Amino acid sequence: MAEIYPSRRVRKTPFSAGVEAAGVKAYTVYNHMLLPVCFDSVEADCAHLKQHVQIWDVSCERQVEIRGPDALRLMKMISPRDMDRMAADQCYYVPAVDHNGGMLNDPVSIKLADDHYWLSVADGDLWQYVLGLAIAHGMDVEIGEPDVSPLAVQGPKADDLMARVFGDVVREIRFFRYKRLPFEGRDLVVARSGWSKQGGFEIYVEGTEYGMPLWDALFAAGEDLGVRAGCPNNIERIESGLLSFGSDMRRENTPYECGLGRFCNSPEDFIGKVALADQARNGPPRQIRPLVIDGEIGPCTGSWPLLAGSKQVGQVASAVYSPEFGVNVAIGMVDRAHWDAGSVLEVDTEHGMHRAVVQDRFWR
Amino acid sequence: MAEIYPSRRVRKTPFSAGVEAAGVKAYTVYNHMLLPVCFDSVEADCAHLKQHVQIWDVSCERQVEIRGPDALRLMKMISPRDMDRMAADQCYYVPAVDHNGGMLNDPVSIKLADDHYWLSVADGDLWQYVLGLAIAHGMDVEIGEPDVSPLAVQGPKADDLMARVFGDVVREIRFFRYKRLPFEGRDLVVARSGWSKQGGFEIYVEGTEYGMPLWDALFAAGEDLGVRAGCPNNIERIESGLLSFGSDMRRENTPYECGLGRFCNSPEDFIGKVALADQARNGPPRQIRPLVIDGEIGPCTGSWPLLAGSKQVGQVASAVYSPEFGVNVAIGMVDRAHWDAGSVLEVDTEHGMHRAVVQDRFWR
Repeated sequence: MAEIYPSRRVRKTPFSAGVEAAGVKAYTVYNHMLLPVCFDSVEADCAHLKQHVQIWDVSCERQVEIRGPDALRLMKMISPRDMDRMAADQCYYVPAVDHNGGMLNDPVSIKLADDHYWLSVADGDLWQYVLGLAIAHGMDVEIGEPDVSPLAVQGPKADDLMARVFGDVVREIRFFRYKRLPFEGRDLVVARSGWSKQGGFEIYVEGTEYGMPLWDALFAAGEDLGVRAGCPNNIERIESGLLSFGSDMRRENTPYECGLGRFCNSPEDFIGKVALADQARNGPPRQIRPLVIDGEIGPCTGSWPLLAGSKQVGQVASAVYSPEFGVNVAIGMVDRAHWDAGSVLEVDTEHGMHRAVVQDRFWR
Repeated sequence: MAEIYPSRRVRKTPFSAGVEAAGVKAYTVYNHMLLPVCFDSVEADCAHLKQHVQIWDVSCERQVEIRGPDALRLMKMISPRDMDRMAADQCYYVPAVDHNGGMLNDPVSIKLADDHYWLSVADGDLWQYVLGLAIAHGMDVEIGEPDVSPLAVQGPKADDLMARVFGDVVREIRFFRYKRLPFEGRDLVVARSGWSKQGGFEIYVEGTEYGMPLWDALFAAGEDLGVRAGCPNNIERIESGLLSFGSDMRRENTPYECGLGRFCNSPEDFIGKVALADQARNGPPRQIRPLVIDGEIGPCTGSWPLLAGSKQVGQVASAVYSPEFGVNVAIGMVDRAHWDAGSVLEVDTEHGMHRAVVQDRFWR
């Protein structure tokens, strides 16, 4: 593979010094920022994540800050989810859609105050959409990207490590809830969340200057826990059915197609509600499914057509060999007529045709 | 440097097979797409570009398509430039700004019909901003990203090469104008434009399936012209004063600060007009300037503060050694009190402090 070329436009993070010192082997770019994707090998990173605890630089989960008297009104416009049910300390997964019901992003929203929200976004400048709406409606809100860089602590020993740095109070944080906890005199949002199913937290590091001190504090506290630098792991996240916006789902997909229908319960006239009404009643024409692909497959770097005979009935955008489960695990978008568990299809991997079987559930 | 990790989210282009076969050494990511940045070395790529002709995969210059009865109305909202003066075959550089006059992008607009525009965007999802405006105003337009991938042909022999593939009619295309010319039965937009000052064209390749055939046709026709694969060159573009959105200018800058005031002549109430009124009259408080930096500098991968004594008076975001001019050429944003040619400053390059002198003009 080719190297990645640095510039101011492809931003470093508050933790880049730590990431580089830890020997990062590969990056991707996400929200105009470097995101590590491999330290040892993707397989070794995965095995370690499942046993110990890792520190992930996920600064690229940038925050869209919405602040001002019209903040809630604007949130209700972009959220298919009922914002009035959101608790003050809750992290709310919000699949934002356009007027046709097409996915624009799938951020996690955090309510800091009644007039102050963050949207922790997947790859894409959702702030531009929000800004366009706010300007056109003459709303009294500021839309910006604050100096906030999430640092994830993931793995079965995450609670123990976090307790050493933030105190035992972290153990009380419930799933997708947060507390404000002090670090070096600054209260940081600490949420039980993260892009793995190995347990853990995301610390919303407010202020670049707290980045490396926190990184160093976590590594110092966790030496005997086997702590090391890690990153979102492509094997673990496919096994876990964690969807990647831009790969598994895009603007041409509705939340129902992505299996996110349960997050579309807003009583408000949110943008896209009318367009989604039919799928809300009758279900989508295609949907995300786990699949097992037979044989030896190459890396999935694009979109692989799923075929039933000669007819395309979907595609796979994520696939990798899982050492734990001993099969190739994959995420596909499959047409209704072929999406039942056990359905046997073929997938055109560009390195050859392979048998693919729809599964009844993801692996965890 | 670390490698770049491929996925569907970081898209390949219609020319990726050619780029890989040509031995690309490094990529960046731009508009969620791979952009080659080096083939031989940045110095050797630069020297070749100035003598011969290169084919550049700039597919990442994605098109924001605005189509429908309200297209012109929407264009007038986002453009500080007078859209009524735009000729039918013109490429119009449009610095799009927000309600505070802050730069959102600096696309080149192409008018395909009175109700049909493309915006060829720099790095950033400007379509989300445009979509937000269109939805909020209930406009009758479709906003999308068509299957259009620009391929640039740059260098002093570009006219000769292009004439062999598209005919001598290409020689008649004026600067920042375009013609629709056939290739394998499909009319493609061919513009005299591109991100170098070595002359050349950009072909807006409509339809992925035309990508490799056109790539191959250009290479086959140009063997005796020394044609090779290239890419936007960081040395040549700094010498030429071509600004990179996201590096040299960002949302915190106005078009006047970027030296783009001459493009702000719209009589319409475009978004940001009121906020820009003061700078339109009195000039900006800081502005883009060419600088020469003394000594041996490392790669500029972030933002280097410019200092007058102990006071920060700007920053440099692009700097590189120019073999042709024998100096370190740089682009900085400099406060008014220090922006005159000959002004001597210091630049904190993180590899050490260096003397920096403001120049009266870029190198070409």
